[in-house]
Amino acid sequence: MSGPPPSIWAAGVARDRSGALTVNGHDVRDLAAQFGTPLYVLDEADFRARAGAFRRAFAEGDVHYAAKAFLCTAVARWVADEGLGLDVASGGELAVALAADFPPERIVFHGNNKSASELQLALDVGVGRIVVDSFDEIGRLADLSTRTNRRPRVHIRLTVGVEAHTHEFIATAHEDQKFGFSVASGAALRAAQAVLDTGCLHLVGLHSHIGSQIFDTSGFEVAATRAVTVLAQLRDDRGVTLPELNLGGGLGIAYVPGDDPADVGEVASSLRAIVERACAAQGLPVPRLAVEPGRAIAGPSTLTLYEVGTVKPVELDGGLVRHYVSVDGGMSDNVRSALYGADYTVVLAGRESDAALMQTRVVGKHCESGDIVVRDADLPDDLHPGDLLAVAATGAYCRSMASTYNFVGRPPVVAVPAPTVAGLQAPHVIVRRETEADLLALDPGVGR
Amino acid sequence: MSGPPPSIWAAGVARDRSGALTVNGHDVRDLAAQFGTPLYVLDEADFRARAGAFRRAFAEGDVHYAAKAFLCTAVARWVADEGLGLDVASGGELAVALAADFPPERIVFHGNNKSASELQLALDVGVGRIVVDSFDEIGRLADLSTRTNRRPRVHIRLTVGVEAHTHEFIATAHEDQKFGFSVASGAALRAAQAVLDTGCLHLVGLHSHIGSQIFDTSGFEVAATRAVTVLAQLRDDRGVTLPELNLGGGLGIAYVPGDDPADVGEVASSLRAIVERACAAQGLPVPRLAVEPGRAIAGPSTLTLYEVGTVKPVELDGGLVRHYVSVDGGMSDNVRSALYGADYTVVLAGRESDAALMQTRVVGKHCESGDIVVRDADLPDDLHPGDLLAVAATGAYCRSMASTYNFVGRPPVVAVPAPTVAGLQAPHVIVRRETEADLLALDPGVGR
Repeated sequence: MSGPPPSIWAAGVARDRSGALTVNGHDVRDLAAQFGTPLYVLDEADFRARAGAFRRAFAEGDVHYAAKAFLCTAVARWVADEGLGLDVASGGELAVALAADFPPERIVFHGNNKSASELQLALDVGVGRIVVDSFDEIGRLADLSTRTNRRPRVHIRLTVGVEAHTHEFIATAHEDQKFGFSVASGAALRAAQAVLDTGCLHLVGLHSHIGSQIFDTSGFEVAATRAVTVLAQLRDDRGVTLPELNLGGGLGIAYVPGDDPADVGEVASSLRAIVERACAAQGLPVPRLAVEPGRAIAGPSTLTLYEVGTVKPVELDGGLVRHYVSVDGGMSDNVRSALYGADYTVVLAGRESDAALMQTRVVGKHCESGDIVVRDADLPDDLHPGDLLAVAATGAYCRSMASTYNFVGRPPVVAVPAPTVAGLQAPHVIVRRETEADLLALDPGVGR
Repeated sequence: MSGPPPSIWAAGVARDRSGALTVNGHDVRDLAAQFGTPLYVLDEADFRARAGAFRRAFAEGDVHYAAKAFLCTAVARWVADEGLGLDVASGGELAVALAADFPPERIVFHGNNKSASELQLALDVGVGRIVVDSFDEIGRLADLSTRTNRRPRVHIRLTVGVEAHTHEFIATAHEDQKFGFSVASGAALRAAQAVLDTGCLHLVGLHSHIGSQIFDTSGFEVAATRAVTVLAQLRDDRGVTLPELNLGGGLGIAYVPGDDPADVGEVASSLRAIVERACAAQGLPVPRLAVEPGRAIAGPSTLTLYEVGTVKPVELDGGLVRHYVSVDGGMSDNVRSALYGADYTVVLAGRESDAALMQTRVVGKHCESGDIVVRDADLPDDLHPGDLLAVAATGAYCRSMASTYNFVGRPPVVAVPAPTVAGLQAPHVIVRRETEADLLALDPGVGR
């Protein structure tokens, strides 16, 4: 191939004449030499471009980057630069945002079990929206707001009975999950009522989130229509017309060939049209829309660079041979394969090869047979220890969910900006490598 | 109940007259107040007793504690005290052992992709055994040994074609996994040959590991018999009689009522008898046996203490109601429920209640619908925010696989020794809580 398929890899990824993969002009062999492996290599321009595309597509609404996908202060600064808001789901994520001087009024605070101290911090810094998720929380937030004389803007998290994934969605009345207030049971209306009754919470909108890795808007249509019925009921029953509707995240990306995520512009017009239709049917003004992409911005930006340690042919029943290729990371830096059976694309990165392809499974170095990075891959049969492999689209939920299993330190994230007219831009570490000293720092018995 | 069932909970766990759970006499409410929640509470006496029971049961052989289950310097010291060896699977685990002054000659070094620097460290400190896992590694280890004039004792990791779990095992010829050298394909014999040919590696035994959470020895019977055929072939073909056989780990524990793990003494005599029979059939002397329990020692020792944040009744289709109980931890401190669909036992810990039971799902605080701690539990219907819950048997693969997802810091591990005649012994922190400062320490943009 002349270069990795553009839909799976970040825009700045290419192959140079030597056959090595490059990221915004930097040879991955140089990146590996400079920063070590495993290494997350993030194409900063790709991240910013996707963030900007969302902002432009939803120019009449708000786009909040979902921090849970991947966050550090550099990312928070890019998100602020590109004009997006930030969706945080914990006090820790809020702390990172604040450390980056992210404007608090552009932060949406989520979570099914925010602690009193997390809520207090959110009130103290003045986050833009708090999405309430239970009656317990409404009471807790009201108490804290009264006591400290605040009036936070609040959204109600709905469960609309829609669960979406890829090209399918399931619509039910009742939804068996921890988040939100059920529309069908009437809990959502009662929650809105409870918020209004507090007097100290400023109810400004509804929030719905229907799934992940979604490729079309059919599930959003049902969800938005159900959410709009709640808006209509609130107008009818309480005379309150809420100005905001947040449709959450979940937009998918391409991990492997054949994945065909929808175009952001088309998604935006489609969502807008869906909400306009639903509001017209109810005689409601169209609320300000918000969306919360995480994976769709961070996911494609990043590849993980590994060094091959061993190549082992394993005979299977029936005479087939699978080549187990062990790399120097694994389920500690990417748990998604083990956790969700997720598929990834992997290529030989440090050189090109025209050798025949062999049936391969790329596995990690952890002491666990389920430690799989890429379950099925075709890689050249001259693959050998020392070769570099690149796994695509690891920008979301890899570093953020990383563990230190087997006391393997978590890899650094290196951001590579796009070249300018002045030439290549230096890569910079935005999350540094976790060292043995870091790993031992929580153990009071070290050096005893 | 008068107390938690002894087979699921650590021996030192009881209920006191006030109705609160205690661990070696310490009220969990006091532990929560002193150390915060979530909190791993480890019954040190229970851990040591299980380690000691293994050592006594396998007095004629070796017991290596599998560090991957849970390791810190305190644990390494207890393991050394109790006379066990240590099985490590990475340079990081080896570093913890060395920081605890664990005797290197009692360390077994595992892993399917040990790096050159990990192997060099193992050689430099003189670990007792290195379990080689691929031809690439045999070459690498031989090079390093020659260059530094060492002669490490080596085991060959076999894949014997047996996969065991609970009361079942599957036996095939070929095994589709990353570890070891296949017995059936002849790779195991070739590997032994390769090790012998190096001249610088001292081949002393074979290693087999067949699964996890195993409740009987039927799978071990097939595995040991196949391993002994390799010993016989080595004697016949090469005139080499290896003195050691390591049957690995995998012995199960009770997570929920009905789980019935085998008694350690019975397992030991059964394994011994199996190997004696297999060796007698081949006219071989009985090798020195080793086993590597991790979960079976660490698992039952620990409970996780959570504080309830919200209780939310959710109507299901069909009119049933499930109560979602959100706690202040989740998939970051216990990924096993999400990763393996693992079952756990949970009880109200800070008080007793004779209220009716309600159908409950205990969930975490992470921004993910799969963030489940205990999928199905019956808890009293007067449960409320502020209540403490205890989840049993979280000593293995919980803290060791913990992540910082959503920037939630990992909980501390507090060890509680058994009372002595002098009275209660003070609990002590063996892994401290991860703070916000720890979480931000890897971000070079903090404070910029």
